[in-house]
Amino acid sequence: MKISELSRRSDRSVAAIKYYLREGLLPAGRATAVNQADYAEQHLARLRLVTTLLDVGGLTINGVKHVLAAIDDERLPLHDALGVAHHALAQTKSAEAPSGDVLEAERDVGDFIAALGWRAKAEAPARTELARALASLRRLGWEVDANVFERYAEAADVLAAWELEQTPISASRGRTLEAVVVGTVVFEQALVALRRLAQEHHSATRFS
Amino acid sequence: MKISELSRRSDRSVAAIKYYLREGLLPAGRATAVNQADYAEQHLARLRLVTTLLDVGGLTINGVKHVLAAIDDERLPLHDALGVAHHALAQTKSAEAPSGDVLEAERDVGDFIAALGWRAKAEAPARTELARALASLRRLGWEVDANVFERYAEAADVLAAWELEQTPISASRGRTLEAVVVGTVVFEQALVALRRLAQEHHSATRFS
Repeated sequence: MKISELSRRSDRSVAAIKYYLREGLLPAGRATAVNQADYAEQHLARLRLVTTLLDVGGLTINGVKHVLAAIDDERLPLHDALGVAHHALAQTKSAEAPSGDVLEAERDVGDFIAALGWRAKAEAPARTELARALASLRRLGWEVDANVFERYAEAADVLAAWELEQTPISASRGRTLEAVVVGTVVFEQALVALRRLAQEHHSATRFS
Repeated sequence: MKISELSRRSDRSVAAIKYYLREGLLPAGRATAVNQADYAEQHLARLRLVTTLLDVGGLTINGVKHVLAAIDDERLPLHDALGVAHHALAQTKSAEAPSGDVLEAERDVGDFIAALGWRAKAEAPARTELARALASLRRLGWEVDANVFERYAEAADVLAAWELEQTPISASRGRTLEAVVVGTVVFEQALVALRRLAQEHHSATRFS
């Protein structure tokens, strides 16, 4: 297909697609003439993955590059590729260095994760995200330790176990990884939206 | 306390605090001299709420204004104030108009929410967020309907019910609302971080 059809089917402007091509987020098409190229269904699929990571995941162009490189690197174990996706996602959040109270909260969070028996790398960015949440509560005057997150950890554990069970490991490595990355990004948006809807429902029951 | 102490205790620059004062996110202090004012503990508490909404919630200045107005408006029922917070939070996400496939997904999501028996307003922004997630999956070639979110809805329902139970409705209205708003913003960050850590744990178990 021509770039104009790629644009129509992906709901992205030709200028945006050219930008992704220049940035290497999308492989070049097959040249058919000067300044003209032919694109295949794989290009459309890759383009849709890119737009999902940008729009839903809120990743930066660089973050998308890292995730795509992890998907395309056949030697990288699946588990490590998931780590790359998480790192890229974490970069969309606060990039500033953790302050003293966040560092203190990181220790509490570390003990909490260890007590759960979870295997999570020491450098996992989600640890710092969780520590930031704990430090925020404390700054607001809540006298809490990391156990305040116990119910959330239970819910996350059940969901993640189920999600990993669903992952098609029999499919090609690329498809499996894509499913894991999409699962992380898109179902996170869904979970956040559902929690708000459920809050509205229970709030309606309790307060009105 | 002087603005310098307010700055030190809130970890915010004096310039930032002056900006919040100009924008009305923080009430003026008690004037003690020309260009000098005295601030109370309530100022510090309000400042910490503002910084949490900005940093953790990712709200815009205008979004924070709306949330604070809802907290301070004694006539606004608690349940409606929660709605204001959700609207402000949703504005941090994609502001573009929903495209055709998102509108179609919104109908599916509406049926799904109705089948759950959840009371959630037709204009709740989380509906559109959930529809965007469903449309994203479909664009990526997943042949799914809104029931793909069933497990997430179950988890969200359990969490939200528990969260609303915890809300101190005996405290002052301001404190209750603050707890609800902080709960929405900060525990959302915690839940997302915990899901990623749990994924890493289960991925380690499954893939390595």
